[in-house]
Amino acid sequence: MWKAVGIDAWLAARKTSLEDARGTVTGIIGRVKNEGDAALIDLAKKYCTLEHVAVTDEERESAYDEVDAQVVEALIEAHARIERFHERQRPRDLWFEEMEPGVVLGMKSTGLNRVGLYVPGGRAAYPSSALMCAVPAKVAGVKEICACSPPPIKPLTLVALDIAGVTEIYQAGGAQAVAAMALGTESIRPVQKIVGPGNIYVTLAKMMLREHAEIDFPAGPSEIGIIADSTAHPKVVAADVLAQAEHDPNAACILITTDPTLPAKVGKEIEKMVAEAPRKEIIVEALKNSGYTVVKDIDEAIAASDVVAPEHLSIQVADPLMVVTKVQNAGAIFVGRYSAVACGDYAVGTNHCLPTAGYSKMYSGLDVAHFCKTASVEIIDRDGLEAIGDIVETIAEAEGLYAHSQSVKVRRAL
Amino acid sequence: MWKAVGIDAWLAARKTSLEDARGTVTGIIGRVKNEGDAALIDLAKKYCTLEHVAVTDEERESAYDEVDAQVVEALIEAHARIERFHERQRPRDLWFEEMEPGVVLGMKSTGLNRVGLYVPGGRAAYPSSALMCAVPAKVAGVKEICACSPPPIKPLTLVALDIAGVTEIYQAGGAQAVAAMALGTESIRPVQKIVGPGNIYVTLAKMMLREHAEIDFPAGPSEIGIIADSTAHPKVVAADVLAQAEHDPNAACILITTDPTLPAKVGKEIEKMVAEAPRKEIIVEALKNSGYTVVKDIDEAIAASDVVAPEHLSIQVADPLMVVTKVQNAGAIFVGRYSAVACGDYAVGTNHCLPTAGYSKMYSGLDVAHFCKTASVEIIDRDGLEAIGDIVETIAEAEGLYAHSQSVKVRRAL
Repeated sequence: MWKAVGIDAWLAARKTSLEDARGTVTGIIGRVKNEGDAALIDLAKKYCTLEHVAVTDEERESAYDEVDAQVVEALIEAHARIERFHERQRPRDLWFEEMEPGVVLGMKSTGLNRVGLYVPGGRAAYPSSALMCAVPAKVAGVKEICACSPPPIKPLTLVALDIAGVTEIYQAGGAQAVAAMALGTESIRPVQKIVGPGNIYVTLAKMMLREHAEIDFPAGPSEIGIIADSTAHPKVVAADVLAQAEHDPNAACILITTDPTLPAKVGKEIEKMVAEAPRKEIIVEALKNSGYTVVKDIDEAIAASDVVAPEHLSIQVADPLMVVTKVQNAGAIFVGRYSAVACGDYAVGTNHCLPTAGYSKMYSGLDVAHFCKTASVEIIDRDGLEAIGDIVETIAEAEGLYAHSQSVKVRRAL
Repeated sequence: MWKAVGIDAWLAARKTSLEDARGTVTGIIGRVKNEGDAALIDLAKKYCTLEHVAVTDEERESAYDEVDAQVVEALIEAHARIERFHERQRPRDLWFEEMEPGVVLGMKSTGLNRVGLYVPGGRAAYPSSALMCAVPAKVAGVKEICACSPPPIKPLTLVALDIAGVTEIYQAGGAQAVAAMALGTESIRPVQKIVGPGNIYVTLAKMMLREHAEIDFPAGPSEIGIIADSTAHPKVVAADVLAQAEHDPNAACILITTDPTLPAKVGKEIEKMVAEAPRKEIIVEALKNSGYTVVKDIDEAIAASDVVAPEHLSIQVADPLMVVTKVQNAGAIFVGRYSAVACGDYAVGTNHCLPTAGYSKMYSGLDVAHFCKTASVEIIDRDGLEAIGDIVETIAEAEGLYAHSQSVKVRRAL
C-alpha cells in the first residue's frame, strides 16, 4: 500500500469536487432562510431532540462535570500556549509615520464585531478546533464570538469553547449551521465572517454564502508533506504518516526524499504501526491516497513540495532551516525530528486550521489577521498639502476629475 | 438638493443589488470559458478592433509619447509615495520567537505567485487605480502581475501600469476580463487573486468566480462620510462633497455634524460650486443620494459614522485625533482641514481601493497583506517536546486520535 506517486497526480487527487453536495446544500440554505430555528431543530432530529438551539449557561457549566479533570487541565494549558502565540500576531492598533514634512500616514486596525465559528462534531468531539478557531478571534478583539457545533453538542467541545471565552454557543451542524450564521435565525444573529473546518457540505455552504458572510478559506481533508534525507528517522516519518492518515479516509501523505533507501524503511515501519493502530481501517483507506517520491537533491525536493503546497510540511533533513527559508508554499512548517505535527494540532501554540489541497499557495492559515480589518489614516498639514498638491491636481485633471483638483485648490487658497 | 437624511436610510441605499447583472455575467463567463481569446476579441468589437489581447512592449513604450510629460512626472512622483507607504505595511518575511525552552515558533510570509489587476477604463483613464492596484502587489513580492483594462486601452493607463512594473498587460474589460484572469485563455494564464474596482458586472464576475480566483472585496460606487463640528470650514466640506459626487451618479456623501448651522452653510457652498463644476450633471445626480444629519455630540457622530462605515471618512473637528482613536469602521480616515480625500486618491501614498457600502465593517482596503500568505513555523527540540508532550497526548486521546498521541510517544522514546 506504500508506493511511489507522482507529484502532480498526488496534488490532482487532493482537489475535492463540491458539486455532489450542491443540491443538498441549496435545499438546506433555503430551509434555514424560510424556517429559521425550526429548520435547525428539524434537521437535528436525526441525532437528538432539541428544545432550543442556544446552549444555556447551565449547560456550559455542567459540561465540566462530564469531562475528565486531566483533559480540562490539558485544554487550559493548550489554550494558554495558543493564546500566547497568537498575541504575537496581533497587529499594532494604530501606527503613524511622518512620510515627508507635513504628511503623517498610518494604519488603524480593529477587530471585527461579530464572527461565527464552525466546530465539527458528529462522531467525535474536537475541542482542539474549538480553541484554534476561538483564540485568534478573541485576541483580535472580536466582541461577539458565536460558535456552532453539531447536536447533541459534546461536553468536551463545550468546555473548550468556554475556556476560549466564546460568547454564544449553538447546537447546529453541517450546512444548516453555516446558513444560520450567515443569514440569521430567531436565535442566531448573522455574523460577518465564518471560520472553521467542516465536511464538504459545510465547505460548500461557506462558499455559497460568501455574499452574506466572509469565510476563512476552503479546507478539505487533512494532508502532510514530508521532505526527508538520509538523516530522517524512519519511525518518526512513519508515525507522522499514520497520524495524518487516521484523520479521515480522504487524508493523504506524501514523502519527498533524496534518499532512495528511505521509502522502504518507512514502509516497513508503517506496516508495523498500522497493525497496532486503533483507527486501522481509516488509516488503510488514507494510505491509498499516499506515497513517496524520490528526488535528486534538496532543491528538487523543495520545488516538488511547493507544487503540492501541503497543509502540513515536515522537514526531516540535515539542514532544515535552509529549507524553511527556501520553501514557498505550506500551511504550517514543522522543523526537525522532535517537531511532531501533532504538537501543532493541539498545544504548541500555532493554529491547526490550515488551507489544504494546494490552497496554501494563496491562503494563510487561520490567524489574528483573519479577524481584523484596517483603515488607513491620513494627516496632512498646509506644508504637506503644498508638497503634494501639484501632483494631485495634475493627475486628477488628467483623469477628468476636476472637483478633485478643486478640493485641493480650495484648501491651498485658505 | 442638499437635505437631511437618516443614517440607516443612507446606508440601506448604498447596497447595490448585483442581481440584474447575473444573467449577462453568466453568459459572458460561459463565452470566455468556451471561446477564450476569441470571446475577448469579439466582445471588444463594440469599442475597437483588436488583433490580439496582449499589449506588446512597443505599445507600452509608445504610450509615453501620447501622455503629457508633466502627467508622467506626476505619476512617477505619486508612485514613489505610494510605494514608500506600502513598504511600511510589508510583513516580516520570517520571524521566530522562543515561546518556552525548546519551543521556537514563528511565521513565514510569502508573496502570491501570480495576481490579476482590473483597471477600469471605458470613458476615462484611471492611471491612479493602476498604481493603487499594482504597488501593493509589487511590494508584496508577487512575481507575475497581470493587468486587464478595457479596449482600446488608454495610453495614460499603460504608462501608469508600466511605471508600477506590471509584468503583463491585456486589453480586456468588464466581466470578460475577470473571467479571463480567473479561468485563463490562450493568452492569459489564470491568476490566484483578482483585485481592483469595477462596475457591477466586474464586481459580480469577481464574486461568481471566487472558487477559481480569490478577490479583494466587493466594491461599489464611491462615498464619503464627514464628521464635522463648528470648527469645520464650510467650503472645505463642500469641496469634498463635490469631489466625491463627481465620480458617479451613484456616488454618495453624508455629513454628520454636531453644529446645526453647518449644513446650511455647506449647502450654500455646494450650490455655488456645482454651478461651476465641469461634471455638474453627475454631481447633481449623486447629490440626490447625499445629505446631512445633525447629532448631539461627537460620540453620537462617531456612532453614526460607524453605522454607515464610510469608504472615506473626513474628520473636521476641534480634536480630530480623539475621533481617529474611537472610530471603528471606515476605509480611509482623513484628519483635519488640509487632508483632502483627493490626496489619498492620488498621491499621498495610501491606497484608494477601499470597501464601500458599509463593507469597511469587515474588510480592509487594498494593502500589501492582500498579496501575501503566511505559514507558521514550529521548531521543537527534545526539551520542548517533553514540556508539551503530555498535553498533546491527553487531548489527542480525548479526541480519539491515537496515532497523533503515538507520533509524540515515538519521539519521546528516541
